[in-house]
Amino acid sequence: MKNLLSLEALTRADMESILSRIAAFKRNRKTHPRPLSGQTWALIFSKSSTRTRVSFEVGLRELGAEVIFLSSAEIQLGRGEPVRDTAQVLGRMVHGAVIRTFAQADVEAFARFSGIPTINALTDDEHPCQILTDIFTFEELSGVPIKGRRVTFVGDAACNVPASWIFAAARLGFELRLAAPAAYQPARSLLERAGGIQGPADPGAPAEASGWYFPSGGRVVCTADLNWAATDSDLLYTDVWVSMGKEAEAAQRVQDLSGYQINAALVSRARQGALVMHCLPAYRGKEIDEATLEAHSSTIFTQAENRLHTQKAIVDWMIS
Amino acid sequence: MKNLLSLEALTRADMESILSRIAAFKRNRKTHPRPLSGQTWALIFSKSSTRTRVSFEVGLRELGAEVIFLSSAEIQLGRGEPVRDTAQVLGRMVHGAVIRTFAQADVEAFARFSGIPTINALTDDEHPCQILTDIFTFEELSGVPIKGRRVTFVGDAACNVPASWIFAAARLGFELRLAAPAAYQPARSLLERAGGIQGPADPGAPAEASGWYFPSGGRVVCTADLNWAATDSDLLYTDVWVSMGKEAEAAQRVQDLSGYQINAALVSRARQGALVMHCLPAYRGKEIDEATLEAHSSTIFTQAENRLHTQKAIVDWMIS
Amino acid sequence: MKNLLSLEALTRADMESILSRIAAFKRNRKTHPRPLSGQTWALIFSKSSTRTRVSFEVGLRELGAEVIFLSSAEIQLGRGEPVRDTAQVLGRMVHGAVIRTFAQADVEAFARFSGIPTINALTDDEHPCQILTDIFTFEELSGVPIKGRRVTFVGDAACNVPASWIFAAARLGFELRLAAPAAYQPARSLLERAGGIQGPADPGAPAEASGWYFPSGGRVVCTADLNWAATDSDLLYTDVWVSMGKEAEAAQRVQDLSGYQINAALVSRARQGALVMHCLPAYRGKEIDEATLEAHSSTIFTQAENRLHTQKAIVDWMIS
Repeated sequence: MKNLLSLEALTRADMESILSRIAAFKRNRKTHPRPLSGQTWALIFSKSSTRTRVSFEVGLRELGAEVIFLSSAEIQLGRGEPVRDTAQVLGRMVHGAVIRTFAQADVEAFARFSGIPTINALTDDEHPCQILTDIFTFEELSGVPIKGRRVTFVGDAACNVPASWIFAAARLGFELRLAAPAAYQPARSLLERAGGIQGPADPGAPAEASGWYFPSGGRVVCTADLNWAATDSDLLYTDVWVSMGKEAEAAQRVQDLSGYQINAALVSRARQGALVMHCLPAYRGKEIDEATLEAHSSTIFTQAENRLHTQKAIVDWMIS
Repeated sequence: MKNLLSLEALTRADMESILSRIAAFKRNRKTHPRPLSGQTWALIFSKSSTRTRVSFEVGLRELGAEVIFLSSAEIQLGRGEPVRDTAQVLGRMVHGAVIRTFAQADVEAFARFSGIPTINALTDDEHPCQILTDIFTFEELSGVPIKGRRVTFVGDAACNVPASWIFAAARLGFELRLAAPAAYQPARSLLERAGGIQGPADPGAPAEASGWYFPSGGRVVCTADLNWAATDSDLLYTDVWVSMGKEAEAAQRVQDLSGYQINAALVSRARQGALVMHCLPAYRGKEIDEATLEAHSSTIFTQAENRLHTQKAIVDWMIS
Repeated sequence: MKNLLSLEALTRADMESILSRIAAFKRNRKTHPRPLSGQTWALIFSKSSTRTRVSFEVGLRELGAEVIFLSSAEIQLGRGEPVRDTAQVLGRMVHGAVIRTFAQADVEAFARFSGIPTINALTDDEHPCQILTDIFTFEELSGVPIKGRRVTFVGDAACNVPASWIFAAARLGFELRLAAPAAYQPARSLLERAGGIQGPADPGAPAEASGWYFPSGGRVVCTADLNWAATDSDLLYTDVWVSMGKEAEAAQRVQDLSGYQINAALVSRARQGALVMHCLPAYRGKEIDEATLEAHSSTIFTQAENRLHTQKAIVDWMIS
């Protein structure tokens, strides 16, 4: 039995094993096996999310499970009672858990004490299901492996989504350019934990850019220079500037990140036919402009749909 | 694939096709087919409602579907993200949607962008599932078709329930008398949209009454004269004076509508054996008095139960 | 068709009939019959509770039912509409109900007017599912019947959990010692309703102790003397000092109940090998100390898990 608590904890072989399963689940949505028949899985969501909730509820049921959705109104992981108590009780009643909460430590503790397969459906540290989905979607729509390609992340690079992208680049051997103001760059310690060795950025890189090199051939470049970061990119990727729980800092964030937008001018710097992705919800005119969102909506809604198929593949990998 | 977004959008043939299916679903509750097997439907409720929720959850499951209930805590249609984004994402994950919200435009947009069967389970404009239920219940309990009969609606005639009654009268050819103070009468534009032509009310009608005539033989009479409206009626029908979201106007509404009550005196003006219905919850002593509610509780709870059977018939009609 | 509304309403034979079914449900969790197939049960929870909710949702589904969870956001039993209206509507749509609310009268009214099997999953008066679970767990882990044994309840003895313990002792013939300050002792009327006759407490009992005797051979002793109450006990049992809804009295309760703690010193007074139970959530350092909780965690989490099996047995008894 395995868990999916972070991309940090996965090897390249783990990621490839998950990625290789997704297409079959997508192709055979109505006819794939139902390995969870007779099981009940709990969704424990301290933060609400329609997309994550629906994709997991539908996916788990299509795998044969019953689902119990527990919102923060019903359960507050780590408030009132220690996570280990909740985990031990639920571990004796349900057969798996999908957790969306704040502290990575709570998801890790839940997995350890419950003894049941546990999935991180978003913490402050990582969003592994999203990034596995994105990589599958890239390979599906572009027709080429992500290894050796260039991915440009635009926006707040100091949070969970870019952190998972870093671990993916480190393991799978692609180039990740994080385009963000200095204060929104990932911690040096994160890049070190991913196994990175700092080295000179590309010859043509801006002076402030910092490069990190990984044994897989992967590379992460942190830079404030959006235009340089998007040059010849295979994938322009963004996320909301103000994610849930950060509403208090909204004005400051909008001011700081203003300019870090995917729009036609930026797309023109990327490789011909580059993909544009957004993990939604999108704020038109902020991190992406209306025209670019509409032009790439087919990609973006395919990306959203692929959460469903990817998460089935994750479960399949966990229980196999 | 069809939607049920309003009675306005239905033809007489559509209504009759739905109505003709209900009895079989009621008779064979445990043995009817399960055409939704393998599907998941989403219930998206911006306003809570036990009756509507339970009748849809039970009904959809008895048709074979799995159900995800999304309350306003989880999803706020049209807040934060445009309805068309939500619709496109959900349309790729679930197989049908039941929506209870405020703006009719949101339900229409959801249906258009999601591409999946969509049911209006109450908007500010219409309550089609309720009125189809009521008509079935009338025909079931009285043993006669509603065509040519007289229905008296008592109370606020300017909201969703009477609007759906107007479209039903227009299509199915019965007489609908709306007994309400002038300020609570439906907009002239609504009657025109339903295809009505204004004409003289009955010879015996009060001077202030206005009559509307429809090609089906249906007729709508708007009047403030409750006693006249109830005379020889086949069905006395009421709804709460203060519906959800109108609590701020409660005192004014109670004052304005006071007197528009179904009670023994009013029932005595109706035809012998006339039915009394209420779409619940009932406020005893307000729109209906305790004794009349109790005397007609068998009808009223049958009406409530018939939501279940009617909604199954609606789904069956939509997917066939 | 039966209900489980209280232990007060059960005979000894009823309790024994339920208790005798639990082990088979536990042994054959994946293979037992599914007598509720084709049914939908409603969980109506005015107060949230992860443990109760999950154990019922999982259990009912493993018995074959679909489940609708209605929180206080969706339904407020007895607010807005009389319980009898809600009950009559739900009784025509769903096949059984599990209710967690405040007033015992509301659960009783729901059962009467709905006409469907109804379970009390906690009211202000009783918590029958918990105490049946506890008795099963005692017999399972100790290997001996509870009849003739000594159970020591530590803490607030004036609420629902000890009330159900009193009715259990009265029917099943064991000794229940309630160790609590005078103000936290059960009402005399409750002991009388259970069929108790007041008599002298044991020769060695503290002067303030009061004894109640039951035809079954059962006995309840109320005392403020915790050490005496724990002496030679077969089961030390506690519950939170401040249960849900009593947060306003928290400081007073903590002050009053301070000292009524299960800890190593207290355990040493009990019989060798005595069990320690807690119906959770546990507040370490309050009603139980950390070391004792950890030392007895296997018992306590087995007790939690047994809610699942016991509740299946309750349903099985109700419908058989």
